[in-house]
Amino acid sequence: MKTLVICSGGLDSVTLAYKIAKEHELIGLISFDYGQRHKKELVYAKKCAENLGVSYDMIDISNIGAMLSGSALTDDIDVPDGHYAEESMKLTVVPNRNAIMLTIAYGVASSRGADAVATAVHGGDHFIYPDCRPEFINAFQAMQDHALKGLSEIKLYTPFINAPKSAIAALSSELNVAPSDTWSCYKGGKTHCGRCGTCVERREAFHIANVNDPTQYIDQDFWIEAIKKGAA
Amino acid sequence: MKTLVICSGGLDSVTLAYKIAKEHELIGLISFDYGQRHKKELVYAKKCAENLGVSYDMIDISNIGAMLSGSALTDDIDVPDGHYAEESMKLTVVPNRNAIMLTIAYGVASSRGADAVATAVHGGDHFIYPDCRPEFINAFQAMQDHALKGLSEIKLYTPFINAPKSAIAALSSELNVAPSDTWSCYKGGKTHCGRCGTCVERREAFHIANVNDPTQYIDQDFWIEAIKKGAA
Repeated sequence: MKTLVICSGGLDSVTLAYKIAKEHELIGLISFDYGQRHKKELVYAKKCAENLGVSYDMIDISNIGAMLSGSALTDDIDVPDGHYAEESMKLTVVPNRNAIMLTIAYGVASSRGADAVATAVHGGDHFIYPDCRPEFINAFQAMQDHALKGLSEIKLYTPFINAPKSAIAALSSELNVAPSDTWSCYKGGKTHCGRCGTCVERREAFHIANVNDPTQYIDQDFWIEAIKKGAA
Repeated sequence: MKTLVICSGGLDSVTLAYKIAKEHELIGLISFDYGQRHKKELVYAKKCAENLGVSYDMIDISNIGAMLSGSALTDDIDVPDGHYAEESMKLTVVPNRNAIMLTIAYGVASSRGADAVATAVHGGDHFIYPDCRPEFINAFQAMQDHALKGLSEIKLYTPFINAPKSAIAALSSELNVAPSDTWSCYKGGKTHCGRCGTCVERREAFHIANVNDPTQYIDQDFWIEAIKKGAA
């Protein structure tokens, strides 16, 4: 299965790229610059492509991102601290982001003769991001089957769709993905903040999977309190 | 119904914009520069927005278009002459173009609090463009309903989906759209070529609708032969 991977440079999509390089034919990685403040992650996506010896394309859609206002990931709104399960995390929704990135990826995959587009949406994304849920993924596949009829047959491959992030953390370790080769923090500072939704989720995942995480976090202990609050 | 219209500057989408300005609340027009050689059409889209007194945004996705190779609309491949019903017209397919433009339009519509995105796909597009067919439109709506769940409810409005282009030509006349305020030719020269698929389709439509078309075509008579060949 000739597969194109959407890779953000985060733990999930880097692990996905390694998994596919092992199990399928990885034909390349693509990333999107949608104007996210944590653009730093893209350096890690590029590094992942280099590590795996495949092509890398960064697609600049920041002009589109600028039109999709109201998200803390792209605008002058503070990135909220805390666990993903909290209401405040809705501030990190960029409307239609995944649908936009996926349709572009499908266009590229069709041009390159790929059989699949892979994306690392996982169980933990469901609560706040409607465009990461299984019913969206199924509807997206159905839509693409119509859109490319007679041109290409491309499968949307989402092996983590029902997996908790801790399972991805465990897999990353099995596949020898170095945590330092991935970037998660939404704030995009010099080191991971340890307080935003994705930092908290990352720490929790490595902890549950019992994987040693040498990543430096500015706030080392915030995640434990955040999880308690999110679970409350 | 607060409606955002995707307008290319062609006869169909300009007529659609006029229709919506009359029947609904037109909140703006958006166009896409996907690297098409007939970029000239975008001047007409902007003019349409000015005529109707609404906002206009041209979204540059030419970097994406450049990755979707193999179409005569974007690459160094000659635009084929003849009727849309001919096999050669498949050269004008840009893979996943409509799905990409629609997902972006939905993101913009969600940010602007719109109730609908309108697009001028019509019956004559079905033969060659899979992403203009009713089953695609229905699947796209279903996908978007999942993608924006809890954020926005946006209808994909396609009033021309089963209409022949001649019905749009008739409507354009009723709504006082000046043919000279629209651009169709895929070749994007100084005047309409009269030979490409969209010129032939335009002439045929005005002829059937019995609407006077003062547009200058380099080849005035080619369309009659092309229709005979397409129908054969």
